[in-house]
Amino acid sequence: MSTTDPQALARLVGETMFAVDVASKDTMGMELLACEPGRAVMRMVVKPLHLNGHQICHGGFIFTLADSTFAFACNSYNKNAVAAGCSIEFLKPGKLGDVLTCEGVEQTLSGRHGIYDMKVTDQNGEVIAMFRGKSAQIPGTVVPE
Amino acid sequence: MSTTDPQALARLVGETMFAVDVASKDTMGMELLACEPGRAVMRMVVKPLHLNGHQICHGGFIFTLADSTFAFACNSYNKNAVAAGCSIEFLKPGKLGDVLTCEGVEQTLSGRHGIYDMKVTDQNGEVIAMFRGKSAQIPGTVVPE
Amino acid sequence: MSTTDPQALARLVGETMFAVDVASKDTMGMELLACEPGRAVMRMVVKPLHLNGHQICHGGFIFTLADSTFAFACNSYNKNAVAAGCSIEFLKPGKLGDVLTCEGVEQTLSGRHGIYDMKVTDQNGEVIAMFRGKSAQIPGTVVPE
Amino acid sequence: MSTTDPQALARLVGETMFAVDVASKDTMGMELLACEPGRAVMRMVVKPLHLNGHQICHGGFIFTLADSTFAFACNSYNKNAVAAGCSIEFLKPGKLGDVLTCEGVEQTLSGRHGIYDMKVTDQNGEVIAMFRGKSAQIPGTVVPE
Repeated sequence: MSTTDPQALARLVGETMFAVDVASKDTMGMELLACEPGRAVMRMVVKPLHLNGHQICHGGFIFTLADSTFAFACNSYNKNAVAAGCSIEFLKPGKLGDVLTCEGVEQTLSGRHGIYDMKVTDQNGEVIAMFRGKSAQIPGTVVPE
Repeated sequence: MSTTDPQALARLVGETMFAVDVASKDTMGMELLACEPGRAVMRMVVKPLHLNGHQICHGGFIFTLADSTFAFACNSYNKNAVAAGCSIEFLKPGKLGDVLTCEGVEQTLSGRHGIYDMKVTDQNGEVIAMFRGKSAQIPGTVVPE
Repeated sequence: MSTTDPQALARLVGETMFAVDVASKDTMGMELLACEPGRAVMRMVVKPLHLNGHQICHGGFIFTLADSTFAFACNSYNKNAVAAGCSIEFLKPGKLGDVLTCEGVEQTLSGRHGIYDMKVTDQNGEVIAMFRGKSAQIPGTVVPE
Repeated sequence: MSTTDPQALARLVGETMFAVDVASKDTMGMELLACEPGRAVMRMVVKPLHLNGHQICHGGFIFTLADSTFAFACNSYNKNAVAAGCSIEFLKPGKLGDVLTCEGVEQTLSGRHGIYDMKVTDQNGEVIAMFRGKSAQIPGTVVPE
């Protein structure tokens, strides 16, 4: 796999990060569906372990799904990047059995700073939450270059 | 237990909500240390299940700790309340073994709308994150009145 | 002018609101370039009155430009709507003489609640700020129906 | 005036910044009531120039009042600091003639990064808005050291 191809590099970065991401993969049960330059897609099925006292998906776990997607999208160039702030709007509750898909897309990247928008939808295409993250690149790479 | 005592009512509300909150109690391993009128305290030890690919606590789980604390604080009057928006600032990473304590305190409550500030600190008193939530009361109670 | 045409209705709503908006029109010097269903565009030239002590446009006025654009976009269906929360990310400073254009576009509208994204760019197309607003419709209309 | 006294230094920084802040002082009509280490207080009377089409103070100008107060509070150590993100919650409208006071107080300062909370109240002590800002110190000083 040539890491001079941006698509292949992003995919390798995603697989490398995801393999050791216990929180997202094992604890939450997320899947990484795509990791491309400036874009990532993840999926999480709402299971009993995600339910709060109202018997709906804990809002924190919807945030977590979006935050993970943000991390994959903003690291996809193989330049280490960290979150420098984020906000979320919850629009609909996630219910047991819902298949939540989060797509994260870069809106702007200027110098070291980027803005990424993550949209969480359910299996009917209804919007569950919208998350916006601001990233800052820091020294280092995810995989050796 | 008399539910005309605000302190006792808040404690009862907290215990009732927490008992069925699988996400906070079982999945995340949080403890509810206090639930008083307009205030709640929760604790979570950072375990391997909380770690992301950088081997630090997933930011989403720090958000989840604060979001749960927010829910207990804003429901503590036994009037159902929901989050109507929230924001978080991450100041320091949470590391394996860190004991994270989150205190949530009401800043203002006017009519149906309140603002609550949650502060997450580690065992050394250092601030890990600050979360602000806006709540809206809706019809209904947590425990029968 | 028939108010059964959504485009014409949105334009009428925009003109009606803007005519009495002293803050946006007279104090800040904004222009309303477009008001369509779920979308609005405004423009503001950075003048000496907008400069803070660093001799750049006060961030509060960039927020104000985006907040006004948000108001026009979310009222464009002639159903009164109010802001229920907003966040802004500043990416570049606005300088004296810059022509700032803000485009606001609806991202989702479900029941009474909508999410709108406003992007402020300068005359070179560079992104100055991104603002996200959550709206809630309330009873009443802007112009009689 | 000795600039080795933190109180005197903060006051000098505040006066120096305010003197050239056309946006806050002249356009908006704010007064700087206090500038102390990690704290500032500003005041603005709602005048006709601040009113939007609903005949209430434009939310952008309430944001601007809080953003200015934030700038004075986070620069008060005479180390240049810039906003790295902010959020606002609007609780009550500001009406013509209202005397809006904004107090900004540092919540945490660790290394280069700080969190400041600004609270805007009216002449009756009712909370109009709450603003939270995250600051980052950058090289340079406001007044020569």
